[in-house]
Amino acid sequence: MALTPGESLRRLRETKPLVHQITNYVVMNETANATLALGALPVMAHALEEVEEMVGLAGALVLNIGTLSPHWVEAMLAAGRAANARGVPVVLDPVGAGATRYRTETARRILDEVKVTVLRGNAGEVATLVGVEAEVRGVESVGVGGDAAELAREAGRTLGVVASVTGPVDHVSDGERAVAIANGDRMLATITGTGCMSSAMTGCFLAVNRDRAFEGAAEALVAFGVAGEDAARAARGPGSFHVALYDALAGLDAGTLDARMRLA
Amino acid sequence: MALTPGESLRRLRETKPLVHQITNYVVMNETANATLALGALPVMAHALEEVEEMVGLAGALVLNIGTLSPHWVEAMLAAGRAANARGVPVVLDPVGAGATRYRTETARRILDEVKVTVLRGNAGEVATLVGVEAEVRGVESVGVGGDAAELAREAGRTLGVVASVTGPVDHVSDGERAVAIANGDRMLATITGTGCMSSAMTGCFLAVNRDRAFEGAAEALVAFGVAGEDAARAARGPGSFHVALYDALAGLDAGTLDARMRLA
Amino acid sequence: MALTPGESLRRLRETKPLVHQITNYVVMNETANATLALGALPVMAHALEEVEEMVGLAGALVLNIGTLSPHWVEAMLAAGRAANARGVPVVLDPVGAGATRYRTETARRILDEVKVTVLRGNAGEVATLVGVEAEVRGVESVGVGGDAAELAREAGRTLGVVASVTGPVDHVSDGERAVAIANGDRMLATITGTGCMSSAMTGCFLAVNRDRAFEGAAEALVAFGVAGEDAARAARGPGSFHVALYDALAGLDAGTLDARMRLA
Repeated sequence: MALTPGESLRRLRETKPLVHQITNYVVMNETANATLALGALPVMAHALEEVEEMVGLAGALVLNIGTLSPHWVEAMLAAGRAANARGVPVVLDPVGAGATRYRTETARRILDEVKVTVLRGNAGEVATLVGVEAEVRGVESVGVGGDAAELAREAGRTLGVVASVTGPVDHVSDGERAVAIANGDRMLATITGTGCMSSAMTGCFLAVNRDRAFEGAAEALVAFGVAGEDAARAARGPGSFHVALYDALAGLDAGTLDARMRLA
Repeated sequence: MALTPGESLRRLRETKPLVHQITNYVVMNETANATLALGALPVMAHALEEVEEMVGLAGALVLNIGTLSPHWVEAMLAAGRAANARGVPVVLDPVGAGATRYRTETARRILDEVKVTVLRGNAGEVATLVGVEAEVRGVESVGVGGDAAELAREAGRTLGVVASVTGPVDHVSDGERAVAIANGDRMLATITGTGCMSSAMTGCFLAVNRDRAFEGAAEALVAFGVAGEDAARAARGPGSFHVALYDALAGLDAGTLDARMRLA
Repeated sequence: MALTPGESLRRLRETKPLVHQITNYVVMNETANATLALGALPVMAHALEEVEEMVGLAGALVLNIGTLSPHWVEAMLAAGRAANARGVPVVLDPVGAGATRYRTETARRILDEVKVTVLRGNAGEVATLVGVEAEVRGVESVGVGGDAAELAREAGRTLGVVASVTGPVDHVSDGERAVAIANGDRMLATITGTGCMSSAMTGCFLAVNRDRAFEGAAEALVAFGVAGEDAARAARGPGSFHVALYDALAGLDAGTLDARMRLA
């Protein structure tokens, strides 16, 4: 495994892939702006009438169940199947899995009916989906029994995905290979939607790494973590951190990104 | 009555209650971030399939009709009834009541079918709901006949709620007790969603004040008003005020909050 | 033709017209705050149960198909017809027309069933609607065959609207008269929703220019472009540009706006 986030970022900014996102109401503006700031093109489209056609134009599909309802779930499934048929990588963000049965069952249903490339969630959400005991409060992960590195490995193995478990240290595994990423800043936990943004970033990196999903997922977290570190230096609190995060994503230097990668 | 906003804020930050919000599309990100900045945990969930289960995890429920439609209204009613059954306090923000019959009737229906703990609105909205003549333009209160202090008292008495009527001076009353709060800044009126944010803050304070709804509602407005004062000092216009408001909420000092309370 | 954006802005701030917006989830907060910052009052309402009543209170209606679905399309048509019946000007923003059949057909259907005053889109979207070859990626216009000035003129002539085609230079035409506006800054393309904001600004200016739709549409782009220029000076990246844009809209000086107009 060789992680080259700088090279992936350079390729992303050259090719500007379209990243189709079916996501929640809370963060739609945020993930769209993060996608643009990084250098890709976001498109939000959730109507059954158009998701299959839209995903055909996209370099990646991001499904996020943060404010789910039946119509949206149907659209996610249709878009996911169309993505599979066309070889478009799919990211699933199972927001709040474990908090309610509806969220847990919907995340499971998407995993069953769609070939998910990367499952990006917090420890509580991913633990729920592999059947490990977890405490989830609303959409916040409060604690999991056990070790996040082992959780990522088990999720990769049993769910047939690249598991990307974010937290103070991020763990990415395809069940065999595993990497732990220490980039990031505590300020990322002070605003809503940074988990969702990291899923959007994952979609961006997959779009330019179709044959390197494990590496792409890890590189996305390196890039997002480094941006978080840069933003934290400019912040006086969560509001100014939020603003600085977009500036930092746009300002990411592909030339120095590899050197700033911190593996744990 | 003794208002102790600092003590409530301290308790909130220690216990980090989950505040379930069924709110409008315009401000979802804003009220979620304000809730996090204050120190509580937001969750947005509106599907009938999960609202009852989600509210069971929550310390308070906030219902906001800012961009209502039939499915959402049904979810609000189901969540409200489930909150009542479990003793979870309920805040209603009747955005735009008085502007259209649909909004007025929906706000009345929620007040009829759900035991609302705190009704938080502007003078025009609350006047509409107690049957006083009011001028509402869209979702802005332009003027009410009569006195806002008396309006809050009448709303508290006739609707069986704690009425929280915000404006240049805020008036909170349960029909018997009443308090007027002068904290805040004119800049709060220059961005959308500050009314909705004050309702979310009310939910946060109710979650740690189940037996002090009147006090909790008033304390929330003190805290939010003080944050507005701090944010205004850092602002060059509505954009920078908006950003500074989250920084200010996160920076609220529980130790000095009581001393900064300004009653009118 | 005499463009007087300063005079229109002064009138807008005096009369504070209500601008009813049925728009997409991504930018609702952004267009509401831009509307407020400019000096008008936004209201977002999309339920069939209330759109006709709401538009009756409004000075302009803005329809934006950025995250469309069948219920929303029905509401847009109902609101549009009600606006026509009452002489309320209508802006259509055909976000993503050309990207999917559903978007193209919906934009055409609205143009057929509603008398649209101003069609505000990028070159790819407008080209699609007049049947010119265009390349659209998601919601981004990547290129059109031919000349944007001629495109605006043709759209004005064949669609019976004032066509407002934004890009590095903006072109506004009613099919006979035409104007090209060079105000603006490249930073406007770095955040999502600035096209949608320019449509909202167009609604604001139409509300105080019912008999000057061509001039109002052009003046809106002058004002928005000047604000973009001011915001760019304060920006370190897309996040801080976004914040500065609201400050700049609120800070627009009606007294110097005419002098800052740059026609191409």
